Amino acid sequence: MDRAADIYQGAWAGADKQQGRKRVVIVGAGFGGLWAAKSLANKKNVDVLLVDRNNYHTFFPLLYQVAAAELEPEDIVYPIRSTLRKYSNVKFIMADIEKIDFTNKIVKSSGYAIHYDYLVLATGTVTQFFETPGAAQHTFQLKNLHQGVELRNHILNCFELASRKISETHKQSLLTFTIVGGGPTGVEFSGALAELIHGPFKKDYPAIDFNYVHIILIEAANSLLLTFPKNLRDYAQNKLSRMGVEIMLQTFVSHVTGQTVHLKDKGVIPTETVVWTAGVCADPITEKWGLPVTRNNLVRVLPTLALEAYPDVYAIGDVSSIDEGRRQLPMTAPVALQQGFLTAKNILASIADKPLQPFTYKDRGAMVTIGRNSAVALIGKKTFTGFIAWILWLVIHLMNLIGFRNRVMVLINWAVDYLFLERAVRLIFPAPKPKRPPDVS
Amino acid sequence: MDRAADIYQGAWAGADKQQGRKRVVIVGAGFGGLWAAKSLANKKNVDVLLVDRNNYHTFFPLLYQVAAAELEPEDIVYPIRSTLRKYSNVKFIMADIEKIDFTNKIVKSSGYAIHYDYLVLATGTVTQFFETPGAAQHTFQLKNLHQGVELRNHILNCFELASRKISETHKQSLLTFTIVGGGPTGVEFSGALAELIHGPFKKDYPAIDFNYVHIILIEAANSLLLTFPKNLRDYAQNKLSRMGVEIMLQTFVSHVTGQTVHLKDKGVIPTETVVWTAGVCADPITEKWGLPVTRNNLVRVLPTLALEAYPDVYAIGDVSSIDEGRRQLPMTAPVALQQGFLTAKNILASIADKPLQPFTYKDRGAMVTIGRNSAVALIGKKTFTGFIAWILWLVIHLMNLIGFRNRVMVLINWAVDYLFLERAVRLIFPAPKPKRPPDVS
Repeated sequence: MDRAADIYQGAWAGADKQQGRKRVVIVGAGFGGLWAAKSLANKKNVDVLLVDRNNYHTFFPLLYQVAAAELEPEDIVYPIRSTLRKYSNVKFIMADIEKIDFTNKIVKSSGYAIHYDYLVLATGTVTQFFETPGAAQHTFQLKNLHQGVELRNHILNCFELASRKISETHKQSLLTFTIVGGGPTGVEFSGALAELIHGPFKKDYPAIDFNYVHIILIEAANSLLLTFPKNLRDYAQNKLSRMGVEIMLQTFVSHVTGQTVHLKDKGVIPTETVVWTAGVCADPITEKWGLPVTRNNLVRVLPTLALEAYPDVYAIGDVSSIDEGRRQLPMTAPVALQQGFLTAKNILASIADKPLQPFTYKDRGAMVTIGRNSAVALIGKKTFTGFIAWILWLVIHLMNLIGFRNRVMVLINWAVDYLFLERAVRLIFPAPKPKRPPDVS
Repeated sequence: MDRAADIYQGAWAGADKQQGRKRVVIVGAGFGGLWAAKSLANKKNVDVLLVDRNNYHTFFPLLYQVAAAELEPEDIVYPIRSTLRKYSNVKFIMADIEKIDFTNKIVKSSGYAIHYDYLVLATGTVTQFFETPGAAQHTFQLKNLHQGVELRNHILNCFELASRKISETHKQSLLTFTIVGGGPTGVEFSGALAELIHGPFKKDYPAIDFNYVHIILIEAANSLLLTFPKNLRDYAQNKLSRMGVEIMLQTFVSHVTGQTVHLKDKGVIPTETVVWTAGVCADPITEKWGLPVTRNNLVRVLPTLALEAYPDVYAIGDVSSIDEGRRQLPMTAPVALQQGFLTAKNILASIADKPLQPFTYKDRGAMVTIGRNSAVALIGKKTFTGFIAWILWLVIHLMNLIGFRNRVMVLINWAVDYLFLERAVRLIFPAPKPKRPPDVS
């Protein structure tokens, strides 16, 4: 083996001594990457190195609840090393990837060079702003744990500032919360925010006139939750409206400032909180790495999830774009999980010189929660709304959380909220930097 | 009332309309300030404004467990607004205090002016470095929640870096943890750190050679826990040694860098982690405010806890220094609580033109936990060690935590640790900034 082989001596302890074993490097410990790693665990002839910039796996489907002060950051994440402890052939490194040399099969990270025989890219997506001026600078995102906590802190801070004596216009913009994008994340967050504000906050901030509060959900299309059947879309829209969310359909954001959202032909909303859930794209780094990308920098793959130009490289999960002839798969945890599982199988097949299998998505349905006792679910061709859908959503999300502790903690927090209309914790921590000094009237 | 009276219109809603009511401003929502506020709650003729720079109260006795990845930040804090909800005459403002005009009885904060009739200063202390060069820049502190989390993140990061292939000298300094100060905080943190490293970390970092690990506790005096009886001091010292903590007594730190601690006449320790628990002092702002201060900027008060020069101003808790003729009280939660309670009584007495009472400390004892099944406790003249002291410590700390949820969460985390030798969560979050780039060997 070459010099690169023992660079991560610690992580790959002993592995370099065994000739004939193949090295699989997996970049990203989200659903795709982590499930690929687990599926390669304890398999003969492979050593796996999982690389992530964080030391934890994030359960993204519940991230919006962190932003709505319903769950705490650590309730939805799990230490990667704990997951991998029991697998002697899977190692972990916390690092950023700077460069990939696909020809020589080397990943460069923090000054190290890591040789691979197989590479799995599971790097996910980042927020897409569609070049809307000011959006990248002035909006909050919901794509990682930091952003979730940042948004929570900001919302709490808005109420703290609004409870002081300030000008009418400042109060108005502090208490107007604008969500751009009516997909699942936008709908779930709007609902959770409405419940946070009209529940616990009403008790916490007696000095605030809640008539100033506006929660505005902006969607460019003519309906929320476009990929869902009409009865579910209608249910979600009615329910959100009754919860106090103002829905603006066929509305386009033209630009954003720290205090306003400007709409195309529909005026200006004074607001200090704009949450952008309107689109995603792969990190432009995929293009910089010289990979074949489609629209949004997604990596173009064969039906086997391998790249045409580099048959030992796979791209899975949100970052992967299956050949354009096929339908666009949703960017969800189940797709990523199933792709992680297939990629492991295909790598083992490739090592054994057997034919690779194409990816077929087993669609088990989709669900979106709206609020207390209310959700929408699509399972097969069947649709569910209200309490039944909500219970389904709860059970499925609890079951899929990694770690017994996380399940218990989430259950406690949900129960406290359900029984006492109370958010367990609503700390401003770490303290956010003030966007502007409070004005004095 | 003057113009200042309605500045915090929101917080003081309606209060300014009722003539004859006295305004009490309490600065700091630690044990002293919060208990003063609670003791004034629902009393006739007083309106209370509690001011803190955070929106939460911190249970400091367990802060070291956050740093040792045993508890999560929100387990040991409680939202101030939740505590105060039920009291109509107590309001809260999240703000920093910039200036106090004692002559005109005005507190200045974020551009606002707040008039008071009575002022309670409960601002606590900050770390005291005794002008040791480099200490303020290069050491970790355990005086607030941010510092606790910062230290936890740093320790985890050291192990992540040490699991890579790095130079011997870098590995040595990454895995040496130095605690300066053998008081209760230093002892408790050393013990918790030893258990974290030799328990869960051994399972998490199979690539690390734990012979490189050193936990060094440095104390200037000739014994740990100086204020405790000799049998408890000996017990603590023996126990810590057996847990792998290297104790250096009669040792003085001459200066600190990012990679080393320099000792007076005892050489240099290569270490990237120095935790400074060796001393505290009041924020120099007490002197800047023109208050009569003693050594360490503590505010000098009369036996009634009021200031001689400003009889309507009280200083309580750690920031208060009772007249020098009396013995030095420990800087603990019980002292602060009792002083908060007495201050409320004295303010009400002053309003009613009745005589004020002097403070007398009801000493219920002191305890320090060392590790699993082991603690020392001094109750009255009786001393306890080992399992009994440990159970006493657990029960008393659990009982004194505010909030049912916090008690449940702490109990779960302690049980997980006790039963499975497992730390529930050990996230590096938010991500720390690297102190230096990893070296490449």
